[in-house]
Amino acid sequence: SRSIDLAVIPGDGIGQEVVAEGLKVLTAVLPQDVKLETKEYDFGARRYHATGETLTDADLEALKAHDAILLGAIGDPSVPSGVLERGFLLKLRFAFDHHVNLRPSKLLPGVATPLAGDPKIDFVVVREGTEGPYTGNGGTIRKGTEHEVATEVSVNTAFGVERVVRDAFARAQARPRKKLTLVHKNNVLTFAGHLWTNIFNKVAEEYPEVTTEYIHVDAATIYLVTQPERFDVIVTDNLFGDIITDLAAAVSGGIGVAASGNINPSREFPSMFEPVHGSAPDIAGQGKADPTATVLSVALLLRHLGYDAEATRIEDAVSADLAERGGLPARSTSEIGDALAVRVAG
Amino acid sequence: SRSIDLAVIPGDGIGQEVVAEGLKVLTAVLPQDVKLETKEYDFGARRYHATGETLTDADLEALKAHDAILLGAIGDPSVPSGVLERGFLLKLRFAFDHHVNLRPSKLLPGVATPLAGDPKIDFVVVREGTEGPYTGNGGTIRKGTEHEVATEVSVNTAFGVERVVRDAFARAQARPRKKLTLVHKNNVLTFAGHLWTNIFNKVAEEYPEVTTEYIHVDAATIYLVTQPERFDVIVTDNLFGDIITDLAAAVSGGIGVAASGNINPSREFPSMFEPVHGSAPDIAGQGKADPTATVLSVALLLRHLGYDAEATRIEDAVSADLAERGGLPARSTSEIGDALAVRVAG
Ligand SMILES: CC(C)[C@H](C(=O)O)[C@@H](O)C(=O)O
Ligand SMILES: CC(C)[C@H](C(=O)O)[C@@H](O)C(=O)O
Repeated sequence: SRSIDLAVIPGDGIGQEVVAEGLKVLTAVLPQDVKLETKEYDFGARRYHATGETLTDADLEALKAHDAILLGAIGDPSVPSGVLERGFLLKLRFAFDHHVNLRPSKLLPGVATPLAGDPKIDFVVVREGTEGPYTGNGGTIRKGTEHEVATEVSVNTAFGVERVVRDAFARAQARPRKKLTLVHKNNVLTFAGHLWTNIFNKVAEEYPEVTTEYIHVDAATIYLVTQPERFDVIVTDNLFGDIITDLAAAVSGGIGVAASGNINPSREFPSMFEPVHGSAPDIAGQGKADPTATVLSVALLLRHLGYDAEATRIEDAVSADLAERGGLPARSTSEIGDALAVRVAG
Repeated sequence: SRSIDLAVIPGDGIGQEVVAEGLKVLTAVLPQDVKLETKEYDFGARRYHATGETLTDADLEALKAHDAILLGAIGDPSVPSGVLERGFLLKLRFAFDHHVNLRPSKLLPGVATPLAGDPKIDFVVVREGTEGPYTGNGGTIRKGTEHEVATEVSVNTAFGVERVVRDAFARAQARPRKKLTLVHKNNVLTFAGHLWTNIFNKVAEEYPEVTTEYIHVDAATIYLVTQPERFDVIVTDNLFGDIITDLAAAVSGGIGVAASGNINPSREFPSMFEPVHGSAPDIAGQGKADPTATVLSVALLLRHLGYDAEATRIEDAVSADLAERGGLPARSTSEIGDALAVRVAG
């Protein structure tokens, strides 16, 4: 008999609320014969204030034992900027080698977009997750003086770039349009840019059916608002991916519906799935948060674990719910979760 | 009697065409008593192919003698990516210490925006121009092998950050809304982020009338498409500024109308004014390019040199022309230039 052993990290703010709905939908969608085990972990601001800890070696050991991780949101204004991001979120991504950060953007029928006209948006960003300017390399000298110098080092390796580029080509090959766009800034960041471009062009030779293009990151932000239909699969560096996926989420319905997976394709370590949005302390605890992004992250989780039919059922339920949403009265977090649970079970 | 001694760099592609119109409008707007001298310089792809040179020490010496520089566009697909960018554009910005990269975004009446609704857009980005990941620091080892490592180093100094932050506060103080937003990624790029944030907060104490806020660069791209009215003055790092100003241009009418100044406020070296757009080789030589961005860059140039009334005349002419544009038949590059020249002279 099959089973899923899930680590659940509700985290801070609305993380608690949206994860509850994600689990509700997950429970509803799974066939009877699949045993779901969940273990909740207390990470984030509360634990940091109580113990000073963000993510210990023992925590990592415990998390390792699970099949996957579902995360709500981590972050609170009471914690200095960077402490939980570097000490928890990025530490986890690096420790579990989550090198494929997968962020689909699809404008579903009935969903409002800030763009005029009737844009067609259906692409996925494959963001590198373990290199670039996110490595924490760099430092500060003469801190706090008028002679302070602070550096940030973007580290890019052939190993790290090639594996994520290969992942992106495989995804592009599997999609109907078979198009892959490399986004970088190779005219200015020439060292990293040439590494990315050369590897991209080399791997492209193995995928003759995939149409490729290169776009500078600055120009990519223009196309995301003027010609989003231009994109099918995008592969990019960690920082550029961070920036363009927030923009992509904004144009395709907002961060309330943007899902993401921090994936270790080798399954050596558990992958982690989380909504793109943050902990939104301003609306926390009020039942106002949209759990859709978390529910769609559950679909990504299921697909990663091989439950394709169930993942599709969730995505279809979300589409149907969103298509109806304009006609629905405003609903609370749990009302949306309930509605989705009913749909996937039906 | 007054005079302006201008270095003119038409450059590549549509650069030639748009600069001609910029000069036409400049000539038309200047009062009789101002003597305008221009000297044209041949930089860009043609010169690079002919001589292998991009910008020599002798070139820099010659350019130094001018009051300001007007540039069209530099770049051509026949030149490897990075050669002209690093060898000319960035070399000039660094050599002449253009640390204030000024990029206004204003959605003028009658101008099409990809955003739905009726967004109010009127802000200016003060992009740092001589530091960050643009310094060319970094390198590559084991190039072309599976063990290649490429690094890019973002260099940030208290000196460099403070001067551009001060410039931005002064600009915010001088505007009716008096609001300044720092855009960075201080939760991940903690070394540089803390330097920027601390200096920003320190200088803020001297400007009690200026409202301040901090936004992560990823979130800033969301607000640029969902709440652009939120911004008045933005100060940011070189790379983040590159990215968000292309997006800002896209939402406020496109890069056809986006102007920029690479400014050395001390006037120790001449400042350089250029449209945000590139050389657009696909439409070069066809009279299709919109010269408006170049004409607005001429207005920034005039304001930098103290010709405020003339700068305003150009901006008013552009507003009037754009307001009418929807009703006008499609016009060529020179027809737009002619129309603007008539307006500023009238
Ligand atoms: C919170 C932060 C560390 C994170 C990132 O920059 O990756 C977030 O913005 C994201 O996109 O998941
Ligand atoms: C061409 C390139 C070097 C330049 C930059 O990155 O600054 C351009 O994108 C710009 O914004 O002026």
